[in-house]
Amino acid sequence: MNRLLDFRKPLILASASPRRRQLLSQLNLEFEVRVARIDEEKLARGLQPRDYVMKLAQSKAAAIARDAGDAWVIGADTIVVLDNNIINKPADADEACAMLRRLSGRTHQVYSGFAIIDAGTGASLADYRRTDVEFRELDEDEIRDYVAGGSPLDKAGAYGIQDDFGAVFVREVRGCYYNVVGLPLELLYRRLRECLTTGITAE
Amino acid sequence: MNRLLDFRKPLILASASPRRRQLLSQLNLEFEVRVARIDEEKLARGLQPRDYVMKLAQSKAAAIARDAGDAWVIGADTIVVLDNNIINKPADADEACAMLRRLSGRTHQVYSGFAIIDAGTGASLADYRRTDVEFRELDEDEIRDYVAGGSPLDKAGAYGIQDDFGAVFVREVRGCYYNVVGLPLELLYRRLRECLTTGITAE
Repeated sequence: MNRLLDFRKPLILASASPRRRQLLSQLNLEFEVRVARIDEEKLARGLQPRDYVMKLAQSKAAAIARDAGDAWVIGADTIVVLDNNIINKPADADEACAMLRRLSGRTHQVYSGFAIIDAGTGASLADYRRTDVEFRELDEDEIRDYVAGGSPLDKAGAYGIQDDFGAVFVREVRGCYYNVVGLPLELLYRRLRECLTTGITAE
Repeated sequence: MNRLLDFRKPLILASASPRRRQLLSQLNLEFEVRVARIDEEKLARGLQPRDYVMKLAQSKAAAIARDAGDAWVIGADTIVVLDNNIINKPADADEACAMLRRLSGRTHQVYSGFAIIDAGTGASLADYRRTDVEFRELDEDEIRDYVAGGSPLDKAGAYGIQDDFGAVFVREVRGCYYNVVGLPLELLYRRLRECLTTGITAE
C-alpha cells in the first residue's frame, strides 16, 4: 500500500496490457483489472494523437465504470506516431518487419493517454504525455530475429522498449520512459495525488 | 543465446550490481559474474565524469581479466553528476535524503562507462554514455518514504529510476534510459557486435 496514495476506494485498471498492470503495481497500489471491449478504430478515427489516446482511455474507463459501483477506474491507451501517421499493432510478422523498417534510423513519437473516472459520481479527468524515441539504423537480421521471437506482435509500432531487442534499437528517449512502455507514470502519480486533495476534476 | 552475439568465448561480467546483471541478461547473453574489489575513490580521483566511469570500468574488468583465461570481461561504472560534482552512494539515510533534496526540481547527468577486455590477448576498449535526467519537485513526505523503504541506499545519487518511487520522481529522460539503470545497453550491444567482426580494438 502506498501511504501517499490512499484513496479509500477500490481502484480498477481497465486495460488488458500486462505491461500496464506491472507499471501501476510500481506505484504500490492495490487494484483489480477489468478489460473493456470497445471498438477502438471507430471511436477515435480522425482524431489528433493526443485526443486519440485520451478519447480511447476515457472510453475504456467509462465502459468499466458503468458497473463498477463506488470505485475509481483508470483507462489508458498508447500509440506510436511517425510522420503524423498512427502506427497500430501489426497484423502479422510481415507487417511487424515492415513497421520496424519504417522506424529504423528515425525519431518517432509515443503518446500515452489515461483517464480516471469516479464511478460513484461520474466525475472524470484525462491527460496524456508525448515521448520522442530515436531508433538507430536496424539491419535486416535484427529485425527478423526480433519478429521471429514473437515479442512485437501485440505492441503498437511492433516493438517493446522494455524487450530484449527493443532496448537495443533505441538510441535515445526524450521524455517519460514509462510513457513508451504504456503509462506516463510520473504524470499519473501526480494527477492521482492531486485527486486525493481536490477530487477528480477535469480542467 | 543471442544468435547475433555469438562470441564463442566465455563472457564475464565484473560487477556486483544486480541491475547490471539483469540488463546484460536482456541481451540474451550467457555470462558469469565475478566481483572485483578495487579502491574506486583512489583510482579515479580528479578525473572528469566520462574519464572517471571509463577508468573505473576498465579497472574492474582488468582486475578480473588477470585470472580469466581466454574469456571476454565486461566492467562498468555509473555516476550521478550535479553542477559538475559527482554524487556517490549515500552513506546513510540522512545523506540519501540530502541527495534527493539536491536533485529535486533539477536536471542532473548520469554517466555509465563500460570496458571490454579480451583476457586472452589483453586487448581492450572503453566507451560511455551520458543521459540527462530531470526530476520534478519532490516533497519531504516522498523523500522520507522512499528512503525509509531502503531502496536508495546502494545507488549513486540515492535513487533507482527503475524503482517504485524513483520512477515517479523523473519527469524526463534525455538519452539512453538503460544508461541510468547502469549500462548503456544500445551502445554496449553495438560495440559487442563490432567486436565480433573486428575483434576488440580501442579507438
